[in-house]
Amino acid sequence: MASAIELIQSRLVALHQNKLFEFFVIFVIIFSALMVGVKTYDIHPGLIRLINWMDIGVTLLFLFEIIIRMIAAGSLKAFFSRGWNVFDFVIVTGSLIPFGNGQMVLLGRLLRIFRVLRLVSMIPELQILLTAFFKSIPRMGYVSLLMFIIFYIYAAFGSIFFSNINETLWGNISVSLLTLFRVVTFEDWTDVMYETMSVYPISWMYYLTFIFIVAFVFLNMMIGIVLDVMQKEHEIYDREHDEGEAGEVHWLRIHAELMEQKLVKMEEMLSRIEQQTEPGSKK
Amino acid sequence: MASAIELIQSRLVALHQNKLFEFFVIFVIIFSALMVGVKTYDIHPGLIRLINWMDIGVTLLFLFEIIIRMIAAGSLKAFFSRGWNVFDFVIVTGSLIPFGNGQMVLLGRLLRIFRVLRLVSMIPELQILLTAFFKSIPRMGYVSLLMFIIFYIYAAFGSIFFSNINETLWGNISVSLLTLFRVVTFEDWTDVMYETMSVYPISWMYYLTFIFIVAFVFLNMMIGIVLDVMQKEHEIYDREHDEGEAGEVHWLRIHAELMEQKLVKMEEMLSRIEQQTEPGSKK
Amino acid sequence: MASAIELIQSRLVALHQNKLFEFFVIFVIIFSALMVGVKTYDIHPGLIRLINWMDIGVTLLFLFEIIIRMIAAGSLKAFFSRGWNVFDFVIVTGSLIPFGNGQMVLLGRLLRIFRVLRLVSMIPELQILLTAFFKSIPRMGYVSLLMFIIFYIYAAFGSIFFSNINETLWGNISVSLLTLFRVVTFEDWTDVMYETMSVYPISWMYYLTFIFIVAFVFLNMMIGIVLDVMQKEHEIYDREHDEGEAGEVHWLRIHAELMEQKLVKMEEMLSRIEQQTEPGSKK
Amino acid sequence: MASAIELIQSRLVALHQNKLFEFFVIFVIIFSALMVGVKTYDIHPGLIRLINWMDIGVTLLFLFEIIIRMIAAGSLKAFFSRGWNVFDFVIVTGSLIPFGNGQMVLLGRLLRIFRVLRLVSMIPELQILLTAFFKSIPRMGYVSLLMFIIFYIYAAFGSIFFSNINETLWGNISVSLLTLFRVVTFEDWTDVMYETMSVYPISWMYYLTFIFIVAFVFLNMMIGIVLDVMQKEHEIYDREHDEGEAGEVHWLRIHAELMEQKLVKMEEMLSRIEQQTEPGSKK
Repeated sequence: MASAIELIQSRLVALHQNKLFEFFVIFVIIFSALMVGVKTYDIHPGLIRLINWMDIGVTLLFLFEIIIRMIAAGSLKAFFSRGWNVFDFVIVTGSLIPFGNGQMVLLGRLLRIFRVLRLVSMIPELQILLTAFFKSIPRMGYVSLLMFIIFYIYAAFGSIFFSNINETLWGNISVSLLTLFRVVTFEDWTDVMYETMSVYPISWMYYLTFIFIVAFVFLNMMIGIVLDVMQKEHEIYDREHDEGEAGEVHWLRIHAELMEQKLVKMEEMLSRIEQQTEPGSKK
Repeated sequence: MASAIELIQSRLVALHQNKLFEFFVIFVIIFSALMVGVKTYDIHPGLIRLINWMDIGVTLLFLFEIIIRMIAAGSLKAFFSRGWNVFDFVIVTGSLIPFGNGQMVLLGRLLRIFRVLRLVSMIPELQILLTAFFKSIPRMGYVSLLMFIIFYIYAAFGSIFFSNINETLWGNISVSLLTLFRVVTFEDWTDVMYETMSVYPISWMYYLTFIFIVAFVFLNMMIGIVLDVMQKEHEIYDREHDEGEAGEVHWLRIHAELMEQKLVKMEEMLSRIEQQTEPGSKK
Repeated sequence: MASAIELIQSRLVALHQNKLFEFFVIFVIIFSALMVGVKTYDIHPGLIRLINWMDIGVTLLFLFEIIIRMIAAGSLKAFFSRGWNVFDFVIVTGSLIPFGNGQMVLLGRLLRIFRVLRLVSMIPELQILLTAFFKSIPRMGYVSLLMFIIFYIYAAFGSIFFSNINETLWGNISVSLLTLFRVVTFEDWTDVMYETMSVYPISWMYYLTFIFIVAFVFLNMMIGIVLDVMQKEHEIYDREHDEGEAGEVHWLRIHAELMEQKLVKMEEMLSRIEQQTEPGSKK
Repeated sequence: MASAIELIQSRLVALHQNKLFEFFVIFVIIFSALMVGVKTYDIHPGLIRLINWMDIGVTLLFLFEIIIRMIAAGSLKAFFSRGWNVFDFVIVTGSLIPFGNGQMVLLGRLLRIFRVLRLVSMIPELQILLTAFFKSIPRMGYVSLLMFIIFYIYAAFGSIFFSNINETLWGNISVSLLTLFRVVTFEDWTDVMYETMSVYPISWMYYLTFIFIVAFVFLNMMIGIVLDVMQKEHEIYDREHDEGEAGEVHWLRIHAELMEQKLVKMEEMLSRIEQQTEPGSKK
């Protein structure tokens, strides 16, 4: 009996490692994403019913696939130790809950949308990109915080001086922040400026300094951080694979250590030889 | 008789390698491109007839030039093994087909437009740029895929929540995708936002998170990839030509190997000398 | 008596170094910034009175904190030698001045807005970013000066040729500069162009050369400078912490010097040995 | 007599090298640029007369300064061998020609505008930037050429298919090129797209592929080239001044050569010692 279970288990693990099965799962994920898209069109009720039936099929297949992965992982702890598995588990089991009425149906639909993110957990290259994205978040966080402080100061200024000019744009600090974000994206920002300039002719300085600081300096810092993170990953890869300049430098460092050890050894040998060939020690 | 053919062949190869002939072909390509441009103006029928006659001339010259290149290549297999030759062949022979009626005339005109791309196959510097472009496509492909997934999720959200607000912008997932692309290019995106904010005041979060993720993070990744590909090409060039930092590091690596070999040899010599000068071995 | 003062002093220094006290101060800064924000809404007079009372509390706490820092610094000279301390002192003491009437109230509010910048003086990571920003200013200054010269030349051209076409956009050199800045941000720039093209059909060259020079070349230089400054800081950090390629190269340089000294020493030993083992010296 | 000329000459050279005189010239250049700006305002005729008189003063001072520089250079050939001197000479002598009537007055005004560019010839840092700009032009030229080819192909397509939809935007290949440039700057590009999509619903592909290729790929190449040129200049500076990573690598290379020579010498010494200590050679 135990051996039968083991047999099924090993078969499932083999299925899990099967490339074809993997492509089939990727295909189902894309198919499931397309179904979400199709539903946004005005379609025949019959087609909707068909999609709903197929949705149940997709959900069951995802459930089956996740159980296989759990078995392949060996233990639940090993399975849940990987962040992407937790994500997949939430998405798949979330779809199992029957959402009957109104608002709940919406929640079910949203869960189905996030299914397309399962693609990331299936394709390693996308995981690398997302990892790079998450790695740059802490450093970006500080740039964003500094940008927010600058936004906040300008927004406070704006809502104090310009709120009488245009209540919709500068009425309070929240809408001022939104208006400043609009200015940074250069979206009809001159309309905003010309309006305040009719009251305060000097207010162009407010916009120009703001655009210069935020759009030209801090956005460049963002670019800098993303490039830096990418370059660092690249350098690490090069060093480990002995490729490119970073690889050659790493090779040099290791071999310089070996050469140094050799030199120490040779120096000792030389001092011994010197002692023995010394005229005094000859006797 | 065979020698006569050989003579013609060698003359044609000489013509093919002639710089002047090359410049003449480049001039004809530019001239042919200009003719396409002139035809978009409202011009005198006589001029159109003249252009049509010149077009036949250009086509024949291109045919002549491609036959020369075929002969210079030695064999058809060698000729077609280069991608740009295949491209040139399709463009040139395509122009030979007489397009008589309606729709077909259009196809003929489109083929004539693509003739300007033959410039790329004539100027090596442009080929290098295009090669760099094609080399960055696989890595860009994954960034684009991830961007598309994020677009798709936001578009699904948008078409579920906002389709009642503006059918033209959010009616189904296709138009939602187009609307989101418009938001990313900052093209009147605030109009789109203010409209949905009138129903869902919190919907600014939808746009701001989207812009932050796509415009600030993933577009920077694009810049990063292009820079990375360019820098890598540059490094390889430097190493091969012993220039710049990468060239010096490469020089160091090669010479460090030589020095290490020398050290190994010297160590062996030293150990032999030590053995011979040892008091015990003296006897 | 003196020991009692010393005891209080040491207690205050301990409080100053306390992490919890630091977080409390950061919290109060954020709280104070939010109060500035809340005041921009139309709120109940009672709430305004409450905020004013809390504002006095915040001011007193800031005063207390800055006195602690002064005591911890040892001397006033040591305290004021740090730029951020001077900034904090101005912001805090500025809030103490009672602003009674009209215009002065405004000045008091503006000073309270700048309090949020005290966050920068509390969080080291933000100081690093701001330092990088200030470091790139001199180099950016020259790019900005060159850009301004180009702006000025184009603005002079514009106000000479286009002032008759649209007095609001090209009336004099100041508004021409503003119009050109608008063109660079791509904000409805085609409207500006189409208008002048109706009089001078060739004027598209004016806009295209300007956009090409300023938007494509000089803004890229800005990106280049920010990246350069960031990369240099990164390299210095790597070298000091013996990390990455720059760290390995630095390690190599130091160890190459040691190896060279060893080689010099070994050469001397060898020459001595050679002299002693020479047949002639054997006797 | 000759010595008197020599005395004057040496005094003029001393004046030319005087820092204060240099600042004075820079001040006059800025003043002259401001006068050009002031003249674009509607000002009092008396002020205009005053400006005209001052302009004569500036012109004479510039003439004096350029003659000094000529004398300081030693010979006319040495003077004109520097590009900036030629530029200064043209600008200054151009202002001497009296432009009496209509159109000619305009030419005189334009020459006066270009005087501000003399700042570049006075400040070395600006010359470095402009040199970097000119250095990146050849490589940028090829990217621009490739971009123009792509623009041309898309413009030909556009003027064939869309000219019936909107004659103003797509009437012929010139206006199509301008429309495409507008699309690339994201300036109301959706209006252009929605119009053609009403006839060819698939035409969004035309715009999206165009924006993707030009705005995302080739503009990034531009950034890449500017960064590359800046980084290379930086690397050369580092190597020459023995600074940073590039400086250390260069130091390593030079010292590795010295070490190698030492090793070769030591090996020879060792082989001589070995021969002498060999038991066979002992006799």
